[in-house]
Amino acid sequence: MAYYRDLREYLKVLESKGKLVRINREINKDTELMPLVRWQFRGLPEEQRKAFIFDNVKDAKGKKYDMPVVVAAHAPSREVYALAMMCAPDKIIERWTEGQLHPIEPVVIESGPVHENIHQGDELITWGGLGHLPVPISTPGFDNAPYLTCSNWVSKDPDTGIRNMGIYRGMLKSATRLGIQCDQGKHLRIHWEKCRNKGIPLQVAVVVGASPNLGFVGAAHIPYGVDEFAIAGGLSGEPIKLVKCKTVNIEVPATAEIVIEGEMPTDSMEKEGPFGEFTGYMGAEGVYPYFNVKCITHRNDAIYTAFISQFAPSESSKLRQISQEGVWYKLLKHDLNNPGVLRCAFHENASGSSAALLVIQLKKAHPFDAWHALDGAAAFTQSWPRIIIAVDEDIDPEDADSVNWALSFRMEPHRDLRVVQGKAYNLDQASNPPWTPQAERFYPSPNGSSVLLIDATRKWPYRPVSLPARKFMERAKQIWEEEKLPRLIPRSPWFGYSLGQWTDENKEEAELALNEEHYQTGEKIARQRTQLGNSE
Amino acid sequence: MAYYRDLREYLKVLESKGKLVRINREINKDTELMPLVRWQFRGLPEEQRKAFIFDNVKDAKGKKYDMPVVVAAHAPSREVYALAMMCAPDKIIERWTEGQLHPIEPVVIESGPVHENIHQGDELITWGGLGHLPVPISTPGFDNAPYLTCSNWVSKDPDTGIRNMGIYRGMLKSATRLGIQCDQGKHLRIHWEKCRNKGIPLQVAVVVGASPNLGFVGAAHIPYGVDEFAIAGGLSGEPIKLVKCKTVNIEVPATAEIVIEGEMPTDSMEKEGPFGEFTGYMGAEGVYPYFNVKCITHRNDAIYTAFISQFAPSESSKLRQISQEGVWYKLLKHDLNNPGVLRCAFHENASGSSAALLVIQLKKAHPFDAWHALDGAAAFTQSWPRIIIAVDEDIDPEDADSVNWALSFRMEPHRDLRVVQGKAYNLDQASNPPWTPQAERFYPSPNGSSVLLIDATRKWPYRPVSLPARKFMERAKQIWEEEKLPRLIPRSPWFGYSLGQWTDENKEEAELALNEEHYQTGEKIARQRTQLGNSE
Repeated sequence: MAYYRDLREYLKVLESKGKLVRINREINKDTELMPLVRWQFRGLPEEQRKAFIFDNVKDAKGKKYDMPVVVAAHAPSREVYALAMMCAPDKIIERWTEGQLHPIEPVVIESGPVHENIHQGDELITWGGLGHLPVPISTPGFDNAPYLTCSNWVSKDPDTGIRNMGIYRGMLKSATRLGIQCDQGKHLRIHWEKCRNKGIPLQVAVVVGASPNLGFVGAAHIPYGVDEFAIAGGLSGEPIKLVKCKTVNIEVPATAEIVIEGEMPTDSMEKEGPFGEFTGYMGAEGVYPYFNVKCITHRNDAIYTAFISQFAPSESSKLRQISQEGVWYKLLKHDLNNPGVLRCAFHENASGSSAALLVIQLKKAHPFDAWHALDGAAAFTQSWPRIIIAVDEDIDPEDADSVNWALSFRMEPHRDLRVVQGKAYNLDQASNPPWTPQAERFYPSPNGSSVLLIDATRKWPYRPVSLPARKFMERAKQIWEEEKLPRLIPRSPWFGYSLGQWTDENKEEAELALNEEHYQTGEKIARQRTQLGNSE
Repeated sequence: MAYYRDLREYLKVLESKGKLVRINREINKDTELMPLVRWQFRGLPEEQRKAFIFDNVKDAKGKKYDMPVVVAAHAPSREVYALAMMCAPDKIIERWTEGQLHPIEPVVIESGPVHENIHQGDELITWGGLGHLPVPISTPGFDNAPYLTCSNWVSKDPDTGIRNMGIYRGMLKSATRLGIQCDQGKHLRIHWEKCRNKGIPLQVAVVVGASPNLGFVGAAHIPYGVDEFAIAGGLSGEPIKLVKCKTVNIEVPATAEIVIEGEMPTDSMEKEGPFGEFTGYMGAEGVYPYFNVKCITHRNDAIYTAFISQFAPSESSKLRQISQEGVWYKLLKHDLNNPGVLRCAFHENASGSSAALLVIQLKKAHPFDAWHALDGAAAFTQSWPRIIIAVDEDIDPEDADSVNWALSFRMEPHRDLRVVQGKAYNLDQASNPPWTPQAERFYPSPNGSSVLLIDATRKWPYRPVSLPARKFMERAKQIWEEEKLPRLIPRSPWFGYSLGQWTDENKEEAELALNEEHYQTGEKIARQRTQLGNSE
């Protein structure tokens, strides 16, 4: 089956599956829209969360917008993410691994619907420029402007010509100017710094609204020098079709809803922020590059798309959670040659926002496998996660209680943890006070922030899990149901299982006890009694 | 209102409140009884968990028992614990604090129903001794005998005569012999070591079944030299009535169901275990003191009481959770003079079994308050917890996700954690391999096991929480309900709140944005633009 041609085809599928809420009433994009969608993340379980489309959007000044607004279309839940991947939820990571191991290069075609409408020069201004887009305020009461959120910034390395596409927020500063938060080390920033050294501006196209695989790769840590369009092609099993932009030397998806073309000056920077962020706090204002718009193109009846991000869980934390799992799994298992790695689970809720807390589940073939995985994960980025924990295959890496069980009883702090400095956590408030200069906040001198690595795997065989053996729990469940006690929802583990350490004598004694013959064990023990001296 | 006179009066209240499940069918105490009760901890939410009473108990040999078996009567849930404390669930810790600050000494009376039946000498054997008690196997398939679990061991310091009462498991080794696991440092073990040095046995009485306040103090870490009966009196607001034992110089509650009197020899030790333990694993066998029974006394129609323990959550993890919270809260706030301490939350589920993972919630008046609390907690015992985390007042200390939010974004590993050695974790498998000698397993040479202390509080003012301001969330909830979207169960936090760092300029910009006047901010930003040189 061919992959979704565009956002529209995908939205139809969501609607047919009951996964799209349509709001027809008039909604204020700045004060009502995001808070409404926010409620499903603060008040509904994941399986009930859906995409939203708003058909009738106005702003504080009473201005009405032509374009409808779609929010949470990519990842309100793992189930919706799977629909967007055209696979079962438990096959997503397999697809992600395949997509990275076998990228499919995009193809450039002559024309596409993204160019059905082109606004540039003076007409761009009279049309309204960025003000024509119904950009909602994400965190009303705190954000200092509407920000683009589902905005995929495409640029090229000026030396190699290799494309990068990444999601960066875009602060509306005027009808033709966007702010962007792009810290040192971000791939767009690398392009910008190279242009700055050459004394030229950086050309950029910002894609808003496309087939969902593009949003997925934009949210992932794809290594520098790898074209995200090729990974997106790998994910969907077919090449992305691109067209050349009208005013910059950049290619964009032919069926995108909206593309904003322009340049980032490299001779000056501007303040950007504050904006509500994934850390669970308002991000700080900082001084960053900015973007001057030269042209906006869009399809007929274009749809404006926003992510709902900020406090986790959110759409963007779900996006990051799954994409990151795919990327880190492929890194550790394939690139770093650690076949025992089973899962790379990023904790989503406030806990880690799918960024700060990574749990690596593995089946060790040798004790060194755990540190091999931890060291590899620590070396992958200079930024998040701040805590990385290795656990065994019988620990649920997504369940904070299960992970804490491993930390409590399989970890010896002075032996099993290591702190590694040299990290820079964007948006972090923990490393330095708010009155510290921006550079110091980003990378505290002299050695930066730190990551905590913990090996919470079993270091040797353990005695069995302290629950009744399976047959007794099964028999008891039968009695439970016969007695018409309340309906059970069994939680794993629900019976005792072996972890390698249990002797034949242990088994014999347990068997004697079941037959009410445990005094035999008592007699044996008495015969083995240890005589003591009078004092120690 | 007077406190429960005995277990029976309390069970009647449980039954009248719908908190007691009565099983009339014939139940095998060794293979069916505990697995049945276990299911409510692996398959029901806490609020549905109840006490169980089994009226018709047999064993593997078909032997029927006179005594009914009560399980999970003390703490299947916080709600039941509150019934046992005769207070509201949110007043339990207050009661615990009061009980410790104002203990009430017990009174010794002439006689009590506990002596309605007395079995000693040869008659003890013909009656059946310990074999007369319907002691269930807790973890069938793994435990090597039935073990007493709700067994409060009462002994006296041979130098001071001050009583100690503590819960220790009791392995059935013969009709007149119990094993006990009592590691170095346990209070009963201190008494035993003192007697050993004097060349005399230690007299002990084991109380099984009494008013629930006795079970509560038995499960708590009451400091050495404090009489648990006095704390139990403090909890209930009236003195415990005691009677003298028949064969040993010990006093026991006059209305107890069953009391086992006897002596622990100090000239030899015996193997004990394995038994399913709170760590989530089978505890190791070890060499420990043991107990010879001289006399068993019990009431007419005595009821046998067991705790359900082992894998958490369980009755004993709930018992420990609440009792420990009361004890540690009083320690940190009152004894160690740290008035900012708000909660001491022991994580219950597999995560920490209400022993290994302690989260201290506090409202700091000064930055040093966090370490004051962490250091004090670390110094309280030589054993569990293995991880102690300090969090702020806006973190839910019982919610692993909320705590992980604090760890992710309020903690800098190289600055905010400390590992302290010198700990001995009973039942631990993490510190040393199973083939290590017992003493080395208990306290790895040279410096023992370690505790991880983490200050996950904010070190300075933070920017606000990244959720829409309260009024917008409230308005959106109204729209949500008008649109008849699925019923919300709001999860805290559901609106953004201040954490101390937010300037007047931040407020002005947010207000402009709400009025769709954010281009004014953009203009201001452009005027403040930073000009760059050609290269860095």
